[in-house]
Amino acid sequence: MIERAKRSFKELVIRRLQREDAQARRDLPAQFNGLPPSLWGYDVTADGVLGLEGLRVPELISRYGTPLYVVSAAWLRKTYEDFIRPFREHYPDTRLATSYKTNPVPAVVSTLHECGTDAEVISEFEMWLAGRVGLPGERIIVNGPGKSRAMLERAVSMGVKVINIDGFEEIEAISAAARRLGRVQPVGVRVTTSVGWSSQFGLPLATGDAFAAFERIKRTPGLEAMGVHLHLGTGLKSVDLYLRAITEVLEFGALLRERLGIELRCYDLGGGYGVPTVRGKDVWDDRMLSLGYPAREPLPAACPSPADYAARIAALFKERTPPDRRPQIVLEPGRAITSSAQTLLLSVIATKDTYGVRRLILDGGKNITLPLGWETHKIFPVQRLNDPAVRSTCLYGPLCHPGDVVASHLPLPEMGVGDAIAIMDAGAYFVPNQMNFSNPRPAIVMVEGGKVRVVRQRESFEDVVRLDGITAD
Amino acid sequence: MIERAKRSFKELVIRRLQREDAQARRDLPAQFNGLPPSLWGYDVTADGVLGLEGLRVPELISRYGTPLYVVSAAWLRKTYEDFIRPFREHYPDTRLATSYKTNPVPAVVSTLHECGTDAEVISEFEMWLAGRVGLPGERIIVNGPGKSRAMLERAVSMGVKVINIDGFEEIEAISAAARRLGRVQPVGVRVTTSVGWSSQFGLPLATGDAFAAFERIKRTPGLEAMGVHLHLGTGLKSVDLYLRAITEVLEFGALLRERLGIELRCYDLGGGYGVPTVRGKDVWDDRMLSLGYPAREPLPAACPSPADYAARIAALFKERTPPDRRPQIVLEPGRAITSSAQTLLLSVIATKDTYGVRRLILDGGKNITLPLGWETHKIFPVQRLNDPAVRSTCLYGPLCHPGDVVASHLPLPEMGVGDAIAIMDAGAYFVPNQMNFSNPRPAIVMVEGGKVRVVRQRESFEDVVRLDGITAD
Repeated sequence: MIERAKRSFKELVIRRLQREDAQARRDLPAQFNGLPPSLWGYDVTADGVLGLEGLRVPELISRYGTPLYVVSAAWLRKTYEDFIRPFREHYPDTRLATSYKTNPVPAVVSTLHECGTDAEVISEFEMWLAGRVGLPGERIIVNGPGKSRAMLERAVSMGVKVINIDGFEEIEAISAAARRLGRVQPVGVRVTTSVGWSSQFGLPLATGDAFAAFERIKRTPGLEAMGVHLHLGTGLKSVDLYLRAITEVLEFGALLRERLGIELRCYDLGGGYGVPTVRGKDVWDDRMLSLGYPAREPLPAACPSPADYAARIAALFKERTPPDRRPQIVLEPGRAITSSAQTLLLSVIATKDTYGVRRLILDGGKNITLPLGWETHKIFPVQRLNDPAVRSTCLYGPLCHPGDVVASHLPLPEMGVGDAIAIMDAGAYFVPNQMNFSNPRPAIVMVEGGKVRVVRQRESFEDVVRLDGITAD
Repeated sequence: MIERAKRSFKELVIRRLQREDAQARRDLPAQFNGLPPSLWGYDVTADGVLGLEGLRVPELISRYGTPLYVVSAAWLRKTYEDFIRPFREHYPDTRLATSYKTNPVPAVVSTLHECGTDAEVISEFEMWLAGRVGLPGERIIVNGPGKSRAMLERAVSMGVKVINIDGFEEIEAISAAARRLGRVQPVGVRVTTSVGWSSQFGLPLATGDAFAAFERIKRTPGLEAMGVHLHLGTGLKSVDLYLRAITEVLEFGALLRERLGIELRCYDLGGGYGVPTVRGKDVWDDRMLSLGYPAREPLPAACPSPADYAARIAALFKERTPPDRRPQIVLEPGRAITSSAQTLLLSVIATKDTYGVRRLILDGGKNITLPLGWETHKIFPVQRLNDPAVRSTCLYGPLCHPGDVVASHLPLPEMGVGDAIAIMDAGAYFVPNQMNFSNPRPAIVMVEGGKVRVVRQRESFEDVVRLDGITAD
C-alpha cells in the first residue's frame, strides 16, 4: 500500500520531469528522438545510415568489425579550436594541456599535440607516453595525488614544464632528484579552495598548508616556485563557482607576492568542463530507469560553453595581476575536447523477448562502456536512422551479469542480429576504463579527410594472455 | 535542523549495528581487529610481518615489486576440495566447472583443471583459452546470454560438453554448425525460475518458453537435449531459496520426461555461492563510510558452507530422479573457489594529513580494485601486524579522482611511504575488472611448496601501447 503510493508519487514526478525535458528540447528535430548526429559531425545518408566524412559507418563495421571505436581527427581539432579560441581572444597567453588520463590513445594525444597542446599527466606511464609520442619535457605538466619516487625522478630528468606538488613529501624528493641531476625544477602546488574537490587532493588554502608549502619550496634548493594548480572536479556546470575558486587562488597569488616575494608565472585552472552532449545521471534518472522509463537525454543548452567562462576569467586576471607581468593561464579540459570526437560501435549478437520486454544483447557491455553507469549518452541505430522508433528496447552486454546493461527502455526501431548501434561521446574515460572482462579489447580507427587508418589494432586472444607465457609470441 | 536529526538517527542505528557486529565476532582474536590471516592460509612471523608457506611477504615485494598478486596453489586446491567433498559424499556424480570469467588467469584455471574441474566459459575468448591450456572440448561448458555465431561455431567444432542455450536464435545456429560439421551437439537450456536473476538471462519456466525451447531442440537435427542450466545470482546466502529453484527445475525435468520423452542427463546448478571472508556492502555500510565510520568487516558465520547445501540438494535429487538414471550435478562456483586464494599487495607511495584525516596514497586504486566498490575485504598492514592499530586511516589510489578510494576510516598502525597493505580475497573479479587507467597492470606470482613462480609478467609501458604501432616491439 505504502509502496504503491510511493510509486505513484514517483511516477507523477517523473512525468513532470519528462514534460519539462520535452519542453526544453522542443526545437530539436523529431527524427532522432532528440539530438541529431550533426552534433558529433556525423550525417545521415538518404537510405538512413550513419555517415562520417562521406564514409558509411556500416562499411567501417564490415571492414573492421565490432566493437570498434571511430575517432574523427577533424572533430578533435574542431573541439580544441572551439575551446581555446574564446580564451585567446580575451587572454592571449592561454595554453591548453591534453589530459592523458581521459583518453590515452597515442593517435588522439598526438593529434592534439599537433594542434599545440601540452600534456597533462598523472602517472609515470603517461609521462613516458608523452615522451614516446615525441613531446619535449617542457611541454609536460605533472599532476596527481600520489607520485612515486620513480615518477618524480623521471619528471626531473625529462625537464618537465612543472610538477604540481600534492603533498609536503614531494618537495624533498624533487629537490633530491634536481640536485643529483644539477637542475632547477619548476614546481607548482595543487591547492584546494572553499569549493570543489578536496579529499585526497592538494593542500588547502584555508588551513595555511598551501602557504607553508611555498615557504618550504622557497628555501629548498633545486626548486623554483612557478605556479598554482586548481581543479574543482568533474562536470563543471557553474561558471560562478569556478570564478569564486579562481578569485581565491588569485588572492593567494597576491599573498605569495607580498609575503614571500614569489611571483607566480602560471595559473593552472584544471579541467572538469562539462560535455554538452552527455548528461550525468541523477537520482531521478535512476528512478526512471527502474520504473521502466528511459533516462532523460543530454540537454546541450544546460552546459556552459567555453565562451561563457573565457571573458569572465580573463577579466578577473586583468583585474588582479600586474599588467606588465600577466601570468600564463593553463587549462586542462579532458572530456570537453575528446569526448565527442570518438564513437563506439557495437553489434547486436542476440535478441530476446522475455517478460514482454524487447532485449538486444550486444558484443560489448560494461567491459567497454563503464561510463554509461553514471552518464546518459546518445545512442543511434547505425543502419536505421530513417525508421520510426517503435519499440522500447533494453540493451545488454554479453558478460553474464545483470549489471551488464548498456541502456534501458530506449525508443528504437525494430532491430535484430547484425544491426549495430553507435554510442556517441565515447572519447572520454571509455578507453581508460576498458577491461579484459571475458573479452579482448576493441580496435580504434581514425577517420581523416575521408580516409580510415587503424590506430590501435584489435586485441587478439593471444594478446590477452601474452604475458602469461602460455603462447608462442 | 532536519539534516541534523537525520544524522543523529543514522548514527544511533550505526552504533547499534556496530554493537551487534562486535557481538557476532566476540570470539575472534583482538590482534587483527577482526579476522586473522590464517583464514587465507597466511601466518604472522615473530617480528609481525605477513608470511605464506615460510615466505615473508615483504620479501616478495622487494623481489617482484607492487602492485602484485600472490596466488597460493595449495589454498586453491584446498578450497576446491573443501567445496566438492561434501557434495560427492552425498551425491557421487557431482562435477565442478571453473568459472573463467571470475578469474581467467591461465595458471589459476590450469591448477583447478589439474584438480579435475571442467571449464565454464561465457565468451569465445574463454573457450579458446580453455583449449589453449589443454582442456579437451568434452570438459568445456558454454554459457552466456549473448553467443555470437563465431562463438557457437567454435563450440561445435571443439565438441564441447554442452552449450546452454539462452534464446531461441541459438537453436538454429547450433544446428546449422552441427550439420555442417557432421556432429551431434549436446545442448542444455538456461532456465529462469521464480527466484533469482532473470533480466536478460535464459528462458522462463513459468511462461512456457523453456518448454518450447526443448520442443524445438527435439525436432531440430544435430542437437541432443542434455540438460538444464540454472544460475540464481551472485552472493547466494540462502539455502532455502536455492532449494526452491532446484525443486522447480527438477519438476520441469519430470515434465520433459513425461511430455517430450526427454531424459535430462545433467543438471547444472550454476554458481554464485558466497565467500565467507567477503562482505557485500549494504546501504548502512555506505552510510557508515560517509559519516566517518569504517564499513563492517566480513562475518564468516553469516555465509552458508558447501556442507549446508550438499546434503539437502542430494536428498532432493534422490527424491525426484529415478535411482537407475541419476543425472549428473554440475556446480559452477566461481568466487567460492578462487577468491580467498589470491591476495593483492599495494605499496604506500605518499601520505597526507589534511582536514584532520590520515591519508595514504597507494600505487593501485580503482584501476585494479574495482570490487572494493561493492564489497568489504580484509586489509592487513603487511609489515606491522604486531603494531597497535592506532589511527583511523583512509586509503586512496593514485588516479586523481575522488572516487579512487580503496578503504575508508580503517583502524591501522602508523604507516608511511614504503609500507604495504595486503587486500585479501583478490582472487575473484579483480583481474577481469582490471583497467589500464593511467597505469600498466600488475604481475601475478604463484606460491607453491614455498617456491615462487611468476605466472603473469608485470605489464611494461611498451606493452600498454603495443597495438598502437608506436613502439618497436
